[in-house]
Amino acid sequence: MSSNMQPQTLKGFRDFLPETMAIRTRVISTLKAVFESYGFAELQTPTLEYAEVLTGKYGEEAEKLMYLFKDSGGRAVGLKYDLTVPLARVMAQYPNLPKPFKRYQIQPAFRAENTQKSRYREFYQCDIDTVGTTSPASDAEILAVISDSLKALGFSDFTIRVNSRQILFDLIIKSGIPSNKSLTVLQSIDKLDKKSREEVQLELESKQITSLQIKDLFYYLDKAQPDAQLQEVITIAKKIGAKNVKFDPNLVRGLDYYTGAIFETVVEKPKIGSITGGGRYDQLIKTLGGPDLPAVGTTIGLDRICDVISELNLWPDLPKSPTRVIITIFSPGLLNNSLSLSQSLRTQNINVELYPNPNVKLDKQLKYASAKGIPFVAILGPEEVEKNQVTLKNMTTGDQVKISPDEIQSRIS
Amino acid sequence: MSSNMQPQTLKGFRDFLPETMAIRTRVISTLKAVFESYGFAELQTPTLEYAEVLTGKYGEEAEKLMYLFKDSGGRAVGLKYDLTVPLARVMAQYPNLPKPFKRYQIQPAFRAENTQKSRYREFYQCDIDTVGTTSPASDAEILAVISDSLKALGFSDFTIRVNSRQILFDLIIKSGIPSNKSLTVLQSIDKLDKKSREEVQLELESKQITSLQIKDLFYYLDKAQPDAQLQEVITIAKKIGAKNVKFDPNLVRGLDYYTGAIFETVVEKPKIGSITGGGRYDQLIKTLGGPDLPAVGTTIGLDRICDVISELNLWPDLPKSPTRVIITIFSPGLLNNSLSLSQSLRTQNINVELYPNPNVKLDKQLKYASAKGIPFVAILGPEEVEKNQVTLKNMTTGDQVKISPDEIQSRIS
Repeated sequence: MSSNMQPQTLKGFRDFLPETMAIRTRVISTLKAVFESYGFAELQTPTLEYAEVLTGKYGEEAEKLMYLFKDSGGRAVGLKYDLTVPLARVMAQYPNLPKPFKRYQIQPAFRAENTQKSRYREFYQCDIDTVGTTSPASDAEILAVISDSLKALGFSDFTIRVNSRQILFDLIIKSGIPSNKSLTVLQSIDKLDKKSREEVQLELESKQITSLQIKDLFYYLDKAQPDAQLQEVITIAKKIGAKNVKFDPNLVRGLDYYTGAIFETVVEKPKIGSITGGGRYDQLIKTLGGPDLPAVGTTIGLDRICDVISELNLWPDLPKSPTRVIITIFSPGLLNNSLSLSQSLRTQNINVELYPNPNVKLDKQLKYASAKGIPFVAILGPEEVEKNQVTLKNMTTGDQVKISPDEIQSRIS
Repeated sequence: MSSNMQPQTLKGFRDFLPETMAIRTRVISTLKAVFESYGFAELQTPTLEYAEVLTGKYGEEAEKLMYLFKDSGGRAVGLKYDLTVPLARVMAQYPNLPKPFKRYQIQPAFRAENTQKSRYREFYQCDIDTVGTTSPASDAEILAVISDSLKALGFSDFTIRVNSRQILFDLIIKSGIPSNKSLTVLQSIDKLDKKSREEVQLELESKQITSLQIKDLFYYLDKAQPDAQLQEVITIAKKIGAKNVKFDPNLVRGLDYYTGAIFETVVEKPKIGSITGGGRYDQLIKTLGGPDLPAVGTTIGLDRICDVISELNLWPDLPKSPTRVIITIFSPGLLNNSLSLSQSLRTQNINVELYPNPNVKLDKQLKYASAKGIPFVAILGPEEVEKNQVTLKNMTTGDQVKISPDEIQSRIS
């Protein structure tokens, strides 16, 4: 940085300072444990790809948001835009991967979004997908993974809405709407969540759908039931423990590439809204340049989850610091006693921080512990050393006790 | 990808497929546990920074290797080149962070290296640093972290070489060499590891160092001892458990920015060579655009460690797959039994994969388990179901037993 420049991150990019990382690490390790309990294994792909791998897949709008540039060797390259295109490349590049290939991937993706909408330009995607089978058990497993993930994170009040693209297409056809209008009609149905039927009716009329067709459409939406395939997905999902799975014929999901079941999860308490989206996409891997393999999966809104836990202070007991106890240094002459205690506690698998400077007043050392949210402070003054004791201060309650060093472990865990 | 393009990663960039990720995840979690046991907390910074933050810090050679480009808003930006410049920016951007600030950071950095030397262009850096104190206890702690890290990874045959820039400068002056030649003389001393004294002597002569000065230099190198400050670092390090710390006056470390103690670790068995490098750098944070804060730290060669563990198969017992047992499906009619068993085992905290397709022959399901390195297979055929049993096959030994479902947990752990 030149001296007249304010040191700063780029707009839409974030530093994760230790307190924030504590939440993210806990969220990610919780999710990984659930994913792995279903046999999903981790995949990571590079930050940079050939531009040709990224472009021509999701249309011009997406391409405008991509970070594309030439590297110093003149190659056209780009930053990852999502985790699905790299998955398609991986399936093509390693044809011998055993199938079904069940992977999760938690990595940053990059989009030059308008930051005024408080969107991140570098954001974490968290995707779980099964590639290479059309079995409804794989769709069901995704629902069970979502359910177990939310429960493990402490969100118990949620609904997993499920529907099927096939059901939607069928009822559009049954209403007498020409099939070339299916996608635009889907876009209108998608708005029934937020708009009244009257408003959606007006929109459909503007798309040259007749009143009779609209009336029939709403009628069939009202009495829609899961078809045999979706019913099987729901039944299996419930059998393997998925909670709050609910058929919802109004669910559309914006993306055109879904071919079968579609899912979306809404967390009602706390009012987070939609935090997962997914479904079956049997053509997409091929469309993206991969082999012709069916797939089903979901994305989980990791950044949103972390932000909500932080903003609403949902995990007040999560330690802000990895350090359980800080050993202060009373004076330069007593440094050795503090060193020995730190070493002894560490061999008992306690995370210990040693205040490094023996020339700093005890008061300032306590302030440091407090600023970092370290829950316990050990003080080794001349009196304590003489009696082979330690003063242990609980920084939450302010209580302090003189105890033998052997008692520290049981007191602080 | 256009249809005529071979799907591929960019040169110097890597996919980490699940088997590789298993090793990396274990290495990283082992290191994190050690770092946190000393009170180091995790920091993450963005992939992209303002180009101005990155450039003008490490000279032209480094800049040639940087990925610099203009984003779609016309801003000059660049991919992280290391983790030290972002640390300096963080220290400047958040002046109220409690100090000493002890952080570790494990993230990719990007350098357009010549890939013929089998260097990665996206590689993981793993840095541990203490910012804001000159206390020798902080230098010592870095040595203890290195020692504990290597032991925890299973490398017990290593030497942590330590020296001090001050000692080197002092003996150069004592040999009568003008101080403006200190850095170039250091570069020659650095080669004593690989070259003979005669060769280094010739090199020094070509730098206009006299024979007498060279003779004195070698003499003082031979009888060099740690000064008081370095001795304190070594003494404290040993007291808090650092093993195999050895004073080595020939250690120089290439980088110009070290101001005090310098460290390097060589692993002798397996013959990995140098895998950590670090030291005290009391001026660097300021030079890089941050505030005037002393610092000490080390980098650990994470990619090298992971590559060696993989190439030499040092962790043969590390599971290749997160899945402990796969539940096969004997036939469509017995799907429900397999579903129930998978759900029941998962509630016992066992990582279970369900083979998703009931129409695939058992033989192929077993091959899938074998290809993925899943250690146990559970078979639920009509006979087993009738007797409320499960056939459990150990894929390593080939043994199979008919047992009650309740016994699975104890058999596979």
